[in-house]
This record gives sequence, C-alpha cells and structure tokens, in this order.
Amino acid sequence: MNASMNPNGKYARVGDIELPNRKWPSNKITKAPVWCSVDLRDGNQALVNPMGIDTKLAFFDLLVKLGFKEIEVGFPASSDTEYEFIRRLIEENHIPDDVTIQVLCQAREALVKKTMESLKGCKQAIFHIYNSTSPAQRKYTFNKSKEEIKQIAVDGVKCIKSCLSDEDRKRIRLEYSPESFSHTEIDYAVEVCEAVKNEWGCSADNKIIMNLPTTVECYTPNVYADAIEYFAEHISDRQNIIISTHCHNDRGTGVASCELALLAGADRVEGCLFGNGERTGNLDIVNVALNMYSQGIDPQLDFHDIQSVGELYTKFTEMEINPRTPYVGELVFTAFSGSHQDAIRKGMAARTKMPKNALWDVPYILIDPHDIGRQYEGIIRINSQSGKGGAAYILEQEYGICLPKAMHPALGELIKKAADESQRELDKSEIYNLFVKHWLEAKGNLSIVDLAETHLEGKENSESTSCRAVVEWKGKRYSIGKTGNGPLDAFAGALSEIPAPKFSITAFHEHSIGTGNDTSAVAYVQITCEDGNQYWGAGKSTNVGRAGVDAVVSALNQIK
Amino acid sequence: MNASMNPNGKYARVGDIELPNRKWPSNKITKAPVWCSVDLRDGNQALVNPMGIDTKLAFFDLLVKLGFKEIEVGFPASSDTEYEFIRRLIEENHIPDDVTIQVLCQAREALVKKTMESLKGCKQAIFHIYNSTSPAQRKYTFNKSKEEIKQIAVDGVKCIKSCLSDEDRKRIRLEYSPESFSHTEIDYAVEVCEAVKNEWGCSADNKIIMNLPTTVECYTPNVYADAIEYFAEHISDRQNIIISTHCHNDRGTGVASCELALLAGADRVEGCLFGNGERTGNLDIVNVALNMYSQGIDPQLDFHDIQSVGELYTKFTEMEINPRTPYVGELVFTAFSGSHQDAIRKGMAARTKMPKNALWDVPYILIDPHDIGRQYEGIIRINSQSGKGGAAYILEQEYGICLPKAMHPALGELIKKAADESQRELDKSEIYNLFVKHWLEAKGNLSIVDLAETHLEGKENSESTSCRAVVEWKGKRYSIGKTGNGPLDAFAGALSEIPAPKFSITAFHEHSIGTGNDTSAVAYVQITCEDGNQYWGAGKSTNVGRAGVDAVVSALNQIK
Repeated sequence: MNASMNPNGKYARVGDIELPNRKWPSNKITKAPVWCSVDLRDGNQALVNPMGIDTKLAFFDLLVKLGFKEIEVGFPASSDTEYEFIRRLIEENHIPDDVTIQVLCQAREALVKKTMESLKGCKQAIFHIYNSTSPAQRKYTFNKSKEEIKQIAVDGVKCIKSCLSDEDRKRIRLEYSPESFSHTEIDYAVEVCEAVKNEWGCSADNKIIMNLPTTVECYTPNVYADAIEYFAEHISDRQNIIISTHCHNDRGTGVASCELALLAGADRVEGCLFGNGERTGNLDIVNVALNMYSQGIDPQLDFHDIQSVGELYTKFTEMEINPRTPYVGELVFTAFSGSHQDAIRKGMAARTKMPKNALWDVPYILIDPHDIGRQYEGIIRINSQSGKGGAAYILEQEYGICLPKAMHPALGELIKKAADESQRELDKSEIYNLFVKHWLEAKGNLSIVDLAETHLEGKENSESTSCRAVVEWKGKRYSIGKTGNGPLDAFAGALSEIPAPKFSITAFHEHSIGTGNDTSAVAYVQITCEDGNQYWGAGKSTNVGRAGVDAVVSALNQIK
Repeated sequence: MNASMNPNGKYARVGDIELPNRKWPSNKITKAPVWCSVDLRDGNQALVNPMGIDTKLAFFDLLVKLGFKEIEVGFPASSDTEYEFIRRLIEENHIPDDVTIQVLCQAREALVKKTMESLKGCKQAIFHIYNSTSPAQRKYTFNKSKEEIKQIAVDGVKCIKSCLSDEDRKRIRLEYSPESFSHTEIDYAVEVCEAVKNEWGCSADNKIIMNLPTTVECYTPNVYADAIEYFAEHISDRQNIIISTHCHNDRGTGVASCELALLAGADRVEGCLFGNGERTGNLDIVNVALNMYSQGIDPQLDFHDIQSVGELYTKFTEMEINPRTPYVGELVFTAFSGSHQDAIRKGMAARTKMPKNALWDVPYILIDPHDIGRQYEGIIRINSQSGKGGAAYILEQEYGICLPKAMHPALGELIKKAADESQRELDKSEIYNLFVKHWLEAKGNLSIVDLAETHLEGKENSESTSCRAVVEWKGKRYSIGKTGNGPLDAFAGALSEIPAPKFSITAFHEHSIGTGNDTSAVAYVQITCEDGNQYWGAGKSTNVGRAGVDAVVSALNQIK
C-alpha cells in the first residue's frame, strides 16, 4: 500500500512567471548587497517575549558593531515601548553618522505624525510604509478592488508628503513594501510600485527603496528570482530604485531565495541574525553573509567572532541556536564519520605546510573555523560510527600522543568497541584513558621487577648494550640478561629466556612528549609472534630506553 | 569605519559550469521523486549518541509506515551493531515486499563478502559503493591521480561482481556515489560514473543509481541544478540511469538545492527526517515533501501526523527540533503580529463558508495545519506586538466570547498595555482573566444592590418593561425605577435618577454561551456620555436581561 497525502485540489502552484530570456542563472554574486537588519522590528515582534528597551539598545549597538548601515528599529506609532526606544536611540547618541535607522508605519495621518515626532533630532531615516496587495488580502482583509488597494498605497505616500516639511524630505528616504508580494500577481505588483514611485518621486540622489518580500514563502527560489528579474525589467527609473529583498523561510529556502534574488539583480537584503522572525523566521543574514565569504567575497559585515554574536543573540532574544545552524551551530565544525575525520586530518596537516592564505580546500569543512572565531579542537568527535583516524587525531591534538599510522587500526578497534558498548559519544578524556589502560598500563602475564642496562662504549658495529632484568611471567620470577644493539634489542633478546611466545620486533616508534622537566618519551612497539599474530604495545617513561622496554612488555601483555 | 571580513584570496567560487542552453529554470516539479531515507546510516552516524539496535528497528518501522520504499540501513561490514541490526531486520521480517534496503560498503573484498553475508535472506537490496573524487580528496586523502581514482571505482565494481552469484545479481542493484561530487570537476565526475556504469552494466529492467552528493554544499543551488542537468545530458544510457541527489546543508540551502535538482531532472532524493546528518545536516525530506504538498503534489509520503513523527524523531535521535523548522516547528503556525492575526482570522472565517477542499489561501499560513495534524488553537499568540484581532480571536475560539467588532480596539488596548508591562507573551487564560476583571467584574462607582423587572404584557408599540432597582453610586444608595421598551432601556432610564454622568446606549450585542444547564448570556454595551466619551461594558448572566443590565453597569464603571 502506498502512503500518500492527496491534496485533492486544495493547493496549487503559485507565482509562475513568463520570463523567456531570463538572465539570472548565468549571473554570479560578486559583491555584498546593502544589508538592512530588521531584528529589532520583524524579529522582535516574533519573540515569545519581546525585548525591553535596554535589551534593544544593546542589540542595536551590536548591529552597529557588526557593520549594519541600515537598521529597522521599530514601529514608533504603535506602542509606547517602541516610541521610547527610538527616542533613547537618538537622545543617547547610539546612531553613528553612517548608520540610517528605518521606521515602519502605516500611512495614516496620526501615525505618520507620531512617527515623525519620534524621529526628532535624527540625522537621516528611512520611512517604511506598506500595504498588502495579494488577492487573498484584498479579498479577506480589505474587501477592496485592485484599484482601491493601489489607491491605499498612493494615498499613503500623499499623506506622508503632507506631513513632511521640506527639511524633512532631505533627511527621509522612502521604502515601500507591497506586502505579500510573493502571493501578488507580478504585473499588479509592478503597477502599484510604479504608482508609489510616481507619487513620491526618485532621483539618483534620492533613490526609493522597493522592498519585495516573500511575506509567506510560497514557491521554489528560482521563481522568486524570476519575480525580481521581471520587476527590475518592468519598473521604470530602474537606476533610481533600490530593489530590496525581504525573505521568509516557510519552505525552508529563505537563504536560497535571497541568493538567487541577488543573482537576479536585487540591491539590498533585509533579514535577521540567525533567522529570527515570524513562523519559520526571516532570512538569516549571517548565513548569506558567510556564504559570500566562503566564495571569496567580503560581506562587509564582521562575523570574526561568531560565537560571541551567537551568545549575545541568545541572551537578547531567548531563542536557542540549533546545533546544525550553518556556521554558528555547535555541531557544524564536527565530523563523526571515520572517513571524514581521516580526510580532515590529512587536509589540516597539508595546510600546516602552506602559506596562511592558501586557497582553503580542507575536505568536509566549508570554511576555516578560525576565520569566525571557532576552534579546531571541537572538530573531531568520536562515537561508534567514527573510525580510527578521529581517535588518533584526538590523542595527537589533545595529548601529544602520536601513534604510528600502522597502529591506528588497533586504536580504532579499541575505541569502536567501547563506543559500541556505551552507545554514546566518547569524550577526549575517555579516549585517552582507554589508550592508557589498554596500552600504557596493560596488565597481563608479564611484568618487570627490576631492570639494569649497561651501555658498552666504543664498540662500533657490534652489540653495544647489555640488559639484565628480573621479570615475572605468569606469577613466576626469572632473572634474565642479554646483549644487543640497543636497550630494546637486548631486552627482547633476554626475554627468550622465559617461556613466553617467541616474537620479533617488527616496528618501533618513539617520540618525546611535554617540555622541560616534564619531558617524557612515548614508545610504540609492534611484535610479530611465531604464529604470525601481531600485537602493538606502548610505554611511557622519562627514560627513553625504559619507554621502549615498557612498550615491549605492553605488547606481550596483549596476548591473552 | 566599515566592517569587513576580507577573504584575502583564501576562498574562491567553485563549481561554475558552462550550460548555455539550460532548461531547468523553466521546468516545474510535477511529481514526487523516489525517496530514499538515509536516517539509519548518514543520519545515525552524525548523532552524538548513535542509536542502538532496538531504536533503529523502531525507526525503520516508522520509515516504512511513512511510505519510504528505499531505506539505507547501515554499513554492515563496519561494526557488529550495524551487522546485527540488518540481520534482525531480515530475520524478524521488518522489511515489506515493496521496500528495498540499501547498504553502504567500501569496495574491498572482505567488506563486500561480509556485507553480502549480512543480506542473506533479503529479497532485494541496493549495494551502495562510493569513493571520493574531488581534487582535495585525490591529493590529501589518497595522493592519487584522476586515472587512479577512477580505477578505484571500477575495481570496486569488479570486486562486487566477483563476490556476487548470478542469483545475487538479480536481487542486488548498484548505487555508485562519486563522493564529494560538489567539489569534483563535472566532466571528471561524468567520466568516472560512465566507467562505473560500463563495468556494472544497466538496462531498463536493472537501472543503475548514480548518486551525486553535495557532500559539502559549496555553491548556490542553481549551480547544483546546472551540475545535474549537465550530468544528465552528458552521461550515456540516461534512460537506464536513476539520477539521485544527496544534499547537505553547509550553506543553508539544502532544500533549495534538492528542489532545483528535481527541476534539472533528478529522479531520486536521499535525505533524513528533519535534516539530521553530519555538520549542518542532510537534506530534510519532510521539508521537501511538504513543499510539494503545498503546491498540490502528492509527495507519496505520509505526514498527516507530523507532530507524532517529530516526537518519535526526538525520542530516537535525542536531537531537538528547532521551533522555527518549517511545518513541524512549534512556532510555525503562530502569528504574533497584530495585522497577521487579523488577516488570519478573516481568512479562516471566510473558509468556514467554503467547501472543505477549496483552494487554500489563508494569509500568512502556507498550508492548513489540520492537514498535518496540527491545531488552529495554537495559531494566535499574544505579545505586546500583537493587535486587537488576535486577542479577540483567542476569546472567541477558546472561551466562546464573541466581542462585537467595534469593541476590539478597547480589548486591544487593554491587552497591549498588559503585555507591554509584563514584557512577555500572554497566554490565553491571562487574556480571558483580563477581560473578566476589566469588564465582567468591573469595579467602580456603581453597583446593583437589588433589581426587579416587570414585563407588561399586551401593550403593543408602547413601553413594555418596568424596572425597579436599588443601586449604590459612590457609596450612597438610591431606589430608582423607570419603564422602557425593554429591560435595558428601562434600567438605563432609571439611572437618570442618580447623579451619574448622563449617557445613552449607542451599541448593544448579546449572545448565548455554553449549552444545556450551563447556558448563559454575555451582553456588550457601548454608552456615549454627554461629553462625547464612549465606554464599553460587558455582563454575563443566566438571565438574558440581567446580562445587559450588568453590561451597562460595567460600562459606567469604566468612567474613572
């Protein structure tokens, strides 16, 4: 039986546009748009607990610091909180000269006057008016014809003009949004915007902002790009118009809609940090900006320390950031898969030999986490799905334990078994402890009771070290001794005197660890027994010779 | 000073493809693709705590119930847990006849044999092999040339062929992934896939799956669509190849990449519920499926009860669902904005008069929440940014209190003030209590001590009710009485005998509330005083006459 959800005619595709010679799919994004943050208005209105004035002031300061030059600050005519916030912004000099605040307003005389009053003393502002233009809104909300709805927009502009002095006109720019643009017939949207533009006027010095929102995202992003390109081609005075996007995310494609709109010629982007906003949220500006950065474009916003920005955002809005949110999420610079971990390790290693700004091409990591204030150490995480490379990387990065490559599978098996058994992620200390317990402190049949070595000087090309030791094998003591071409060889030879399996050393690695008085040596030894089985062992000591000897004991103790 | 993040040559755009006659931007999505869930493999591997076998079995059963016909179940050769899970799937008969499980494997003889062993008794399966093909992986991970990497893929296919009996060949289909496809030169990707296809063979009865992942999403979604269209045009035997997408979400555009790939001709979609997966996650299949549904296409998956699916997902994976995740997030069917609430209320009201399957066009709500098992009652939430419509809607939907439209602004003011003061969201009971305290139990100068009404029968066209009452006004008692053309009129008239402001009743509404013995009446009265001020009052009583009288008292008590 097939599962289904038959829409039965209840839904239909909307927004199809005839655009036979569309150009946007061949375009490239080459520079940052004008960014306008709507965190303090569209974002704030969607919070379960909207921000208070002091929080809003702190958020505004953050936005300025991040580099936003246009910031929508509220709907001052709508409530005392909104009004007072704007007064404090102005009176307490929060607004730098190169930052323009934007205020939302319905075009009614009393509201426009109150809004202008709230802007007293403000050097420049964008006055943002809107009315809803979609068929459903015309029908249900306003019960008005297309002509009447267009007239609302034009009357709104007239009302603003009538409330503004000549002086005001110099410092106030107009933004008009045909709200529910995404559900509005494209020709009608152009017609309404044309009427608004003609009523307000525009010039190279005083461009008008036409903001074309996907108020409810209702089509695939390419259709929005078509709409933007169509609008840009059909509106007159294109060169004196700033085409602005304002994307929501109802279909989970807000970022893509914005990016394709930029390909289609949009000049300006409204959105919120981390996609805050009504329902599924507004466009996530951080995401779009860092997408640009990942392709070599300066976004003209500063997210060098994204972690702190994320923390402030959470503090201000009480909204959590999902661990999988691009760039900022906790799990973004993490790889659980063994093959991913391995490739990352190799890519990172290769980078250490390159100039700092060599083209970034580390597998599985879109951008260098350092560029946005994130750390490498969090990158590798170990669960039962991880392979050997990840655990080895952890031991190396966190503990300075550099296992030889040939030992990685043995480590991988050990870790996988532990993770499989615990059915959860292992943290770095657990990985280290497993290594210590399994190898450095391996318990088994063999232990050293006493060890003495003598280096025989001046005998080139001959066996140069003698080793004498007392060991216990299966609970019984043996005094053994042998000469060899080094302490390890001598000790291994001496072990032929006890009834342990016969073996030879088939790999040996050693490195120092720590610095100064804390320096030790870690040795890794692979033994191959007569039956062909191979075992790894590891030893650690302040004495380089003893570390190797302990590694041999550790390897023999793997034989069960 | 301008904020900036100068990439200084460290990053570059990747993946540009020459596609002069691209067709996909003019295409439409018209039917569901083949869905393949990779929740149990790619999703599971990215969990902080991967699922145990019993949880995986329950997840598998859920996927089957939702309608998935292809389900990647693991990497059986990689660990005992994975192997045992597949054995239990088969031995406990979890796999319906029309569902094909898919197993991932590296193409090495021992692993292939172990994988085939795990599939014993399984009617059909997809054998999924992969190797990484991007320049960075060739260089860092494998240190091999293009030819050598292609040979790895071909040798892998040869190895599988050599391990399979003729009988096996009938039940096993091949999926090949040029892993890191998104970072691979498109011509080279085609070349490798061509070689794999030629080695394995394909026909109308035994199509080969070519899975083209954005292993790391590294370009805008239109570039991925270009890559898919290019691939489809350049691979031979196109008709015997299933082109599969496997999108990740590093740039936050996984859903869009998948959708544009479908426009470009992809046949199949791999992904996870709610976008689980490494880093920023795999493609969210729920999102893409319901996007189709929202445009009138049966997704062939069943998300009628998305809430339960979300709860099971959270239980199985221990991953939270973000409140703004399309369709399933807690805040998705919520509107805080007053104008949104108003438009939604009107759109919903219009729908009550339409046939059930009338085309959905309620403003601000992409699809009918009922269609996916979500509720209207959660739709409207009230904070200080909300308007009058939302609170009125709550009172009506939750408490049966239908305020007359003209009274909405008074309610809105009351609610906004309370929300402004509390600086947080008000829940429905708080809204109701504000209404009760402010109107139904309004305290003020006037109260009724005793009330008696006499209906005068048989006197048509004349005053027909007399009212006698004892009231207190500013602490002093008055016995009053009057005749009027109804109890309200009589009572209002009688009040002229006390030293209260003179008023007339300018609006009156009343409706019943509750059923049976619980039935009451709620009355709303607007009075207009001699000074022009207007006040609303409300009263509730089991007696329809008394409710109106109480509403008049309530209105007079608004005068402070």
